[in-house]
Amino acid sequence: MGRAARAAARQIAAADTSVKNRALKAIAGELKSQRALLMAANALDMQAGREHGLDAALLDRLELNDARIEDMIEGLVQVADLPDPVGEIKDLRYRPSGIQVGKMRVPLGVVGIIYESRPNVTIDAASLCLKSGNATILRGGSEALRSNKAIAVCIAAGLRAAGLPETAVQVVDTRDRAAVGALITMPEYVDVIVPRGGTGLIERVSREARVPVIKHLHGVCHVYIDDRADLQKAFDIALNAKTHRYGVCNAMETLLVAEAVAVDILPRLARAYEEKGVELRGCARTQEILPSCNAAREEDWSEEYLAPILAIRVVAGMDSAIEHIVRYGSGHTEAIVTRDYSRGRRFLSEVDASSVMINASTRFADGFEYGLGAEIGISTDKIHARGPVGLEGLTSQKWIVLGDGHIRQ
Amino acid sequence: MGRAARAAARQIAAADTSVKNRALKAIAGELKSQRALLMAANALDMQAGREHGLDAALLDRLELNDARIEDMIEGLVQVADLPDPVGEIKDLRYRPSGIQVGKMRVPLGVVGIIYESRPNVTIDAASLCLKSGNATILRGGSEALRSNKAIAVCIAAGLRAAGLPETAVQVVDTRDRAAVGALITMPEYVDVIVPRGGTGLIERVSREARVPVIKHLHGVCHVYIDDRADLQKAFDIALNAKTHRYGVCNAMETLLVAEAVAVDILPRLARAYEEKGVELRGCARTQEILPSCNAAREEDWSEEYLAPILAIRVVAGMDSAIEHIVRYGSGHTEAIVTRDYSRGRRFLSEVDASSVMINASTRFADGFEYGLGAEIGISTDKIHARGPVGLEGLTSQKWIVLGDGHIRQ
Repeated sequence: MGRAARAAARQIAAADTSVKNRALKAIAGELKSQRALLMAANALDMQAGREHGLDAALLDRLELNDARIEDMIEGLVQVADLPDPVGEIKDLRYRPSGIQVGKMRVPLGVVGIIYESRPNVTIDAASLCLKSGNATILRGGSEALRSNKAIAVCIAAGLRAAGLPETAVQVVDTRDRAAVGALITMPEYVDVIVPRGGTGLIERVSREARVPVIKHLHGVCHVYIDDRADLQKAFDIALNAKTHRYGVCNAMETLLVAEAVAVDILPRLARAYEEKGVELRGCARTQEILPSCNAAREEDWSEEYLAPILAIRVVAGMDSAIEHIVRYGSGHTEAIVTRDYSRGRRFLSEVDASSVMINASTRFADGFEYGLGAEIGISTDKIHARGPVGLEGLTSQKWIVLGDGHIRQ
Repeated sequence: MGRAARAAARQIAAADTSVKNRALKAIAGELKSQRALLMAANALDMQAGREHGLDAALLDRLELNDARIEDMIEGLVQVADLPDPVGEIKDLRYRPSGIQVGKMRVPLGVVGIIYESRPNVTIDAASLCLKSGNATILRGGSEALRSNKAIAVCIAAGLRAAGLPETAVQVVDTRDRAAVGALITMPEYVDVIVPRGGTGLIERVSREARVPVIKHLHGVCHVYIDDRADLQKAFDIALNAKTHRYGVCNAMETLLVAEAVAVDILPRLARAYEEKGVELRGCARTQEILPSCNAAREEDWSEEYLAPILAIRVVAGMDSAIEHIVRYGSGHTEAIVTRDYSRGRRFLSEVDASSVMINASTRFADGFEYGLGAEIGISTDKIHARGPVGLEGLTSQKWIVLGDGHIRQ
């Protein structure tokens, strides 16, 4: 598969934008016409999953229904509509020697994606890699194998219809866990690995990979309400960042509140959270202000709840808030609410995270909200791609030099 | 050292440009005033090296003399004069939700550099990391330990003079090889490793690292002379690419010549190479045209000679040349000489290397020639930084979001 992917990568890298778009739309057409087959394959996965005692959340993620197939089709059309990043030339400038030097955007080559139960990731990942000119090897969860194989048949048919090699997108067709081990240790065939899934998967891949990894580890996001915050905005943002959705990586997990405004804002916020059924776990000072609040343990400050639970800490001011974020944050998304220009400027500079925000909800940290059109994930790495990763994150650049017989003196 | 570097990284990341520049100039001043001490420390390294039977090339690289110390001082001043990449904000745009989204350039954090005998790398690496706002842990060759420690004393004094923590640049003060193993497996303290040295070192680091690596593997560079080349330009470029300097990674190692012009250009080129003392190793067709040429074996096509030796192959045309480059090239620098617009355009798109050139000598692949001001090395990786790596390659970006109470709908 590695050799086939490497060969296909050259063809897909050289493919015109129109050919890649034709393939994306042909895959969408296949999904539409093969809907009954997809549902049947998925029904078998669901049945096996129930027999193996998968929990309700996993079964929900595994399920394909009409709405989800519609979303996959819509996603393909959207990716086809995005601008093609490949071949973009930037900063082409004359140098004193007379040569022109610039940078051209190029595909990475072969992208390996390792993910868990959701079969729609198969289409998301395949479409982004295809549009960015990469060949892909997809390794989905074994519980979704039949669904993924049915989707792979549609992808192959779409590629064929556009005259592209079917091996440009390959789905690993085995439940053998050794396949992951092989995929992440073949730098000669795989240029980058994107693991998508639980912490266990990502830690294993990071530990064992001999191929570069673009990964998302934890999302322990903070909102800090400064003593110079507009309290109505602070209220709106703190509520939105926690309760807009719970199971997402950009949800706030810990709220930091400046001592000077804690008595003003925490009781109002606590009532709003309670109405939404959010459990609060606070520091000692928070418990003084909110007597019904549970006590936060040390572990709570590092916890990614992904649930209606919120840790709250009252801090002396911005410096203490930044100290807390440096110590417990995961480098995902951090926000300050303040009216103070200097503090906003300092927070922006001094907090090191993939997204840093002033007066906005952490929930905005997302490829669609940032205008990337689509995302293959959110990277908490510092190297290569950071934050939401769209088509550009799946490309590299090469230097180009245009001369007219120039030699080095 | 890791913990100290992590703490210093925060301070250096937040340091003003003027403070960093003051430190760079203070270090230059220290080198100037401590010249006698540096020479004395280096003399001990040289003596020990001779006693341990280091070869002449290694001893030459190890030696510090007046000119080399002058170069180090000059390098520091040049880096101080480069624009500061940190804090640059790009592409700040309003999104339909009302938030402004952009990217801010930030230091990587802690950079580990592992290198071999040349002590001047200590200053090059320290200055580039300092200017780009990173803390550094430097692990030089054990044969240069006394020289590096003397340089480290100057660096520490310069940092202190500018009010920056001395731990922003730390030199590993042991000959124990286990230090390298520790440095490359501490992702909690080191954000990226840059190994500089022979293939053995780089392969070891790549194999064992659990920290991202920016590396340079091989430089098997090609020049392809197309049948539509201007033959005078082809002659100049082929001669310059091989003979301008031999021991450098961007020197041409294999010359590819289109069959239709081989008889015209090869004899002239062979005479010029012979005058320079370059040994030629050709394919069967090359030997027919140049009877005195040695036979190239299969291994020659993959060889990075770094010496006055050149492999020559006659190919049918550009497609065969690209096939050869895909098979044997190392992704460093590849050049075509042609007058044909379509072929130049295709070569630029289809050849995947860190630098791809039309009608220019491969010797231009260099941070100074490209306008980066200075380089920490040339990366043959595809991820993060590719080709010459200057200050920008030592930074990352974070997303910034400016709102005014915006919440996600």
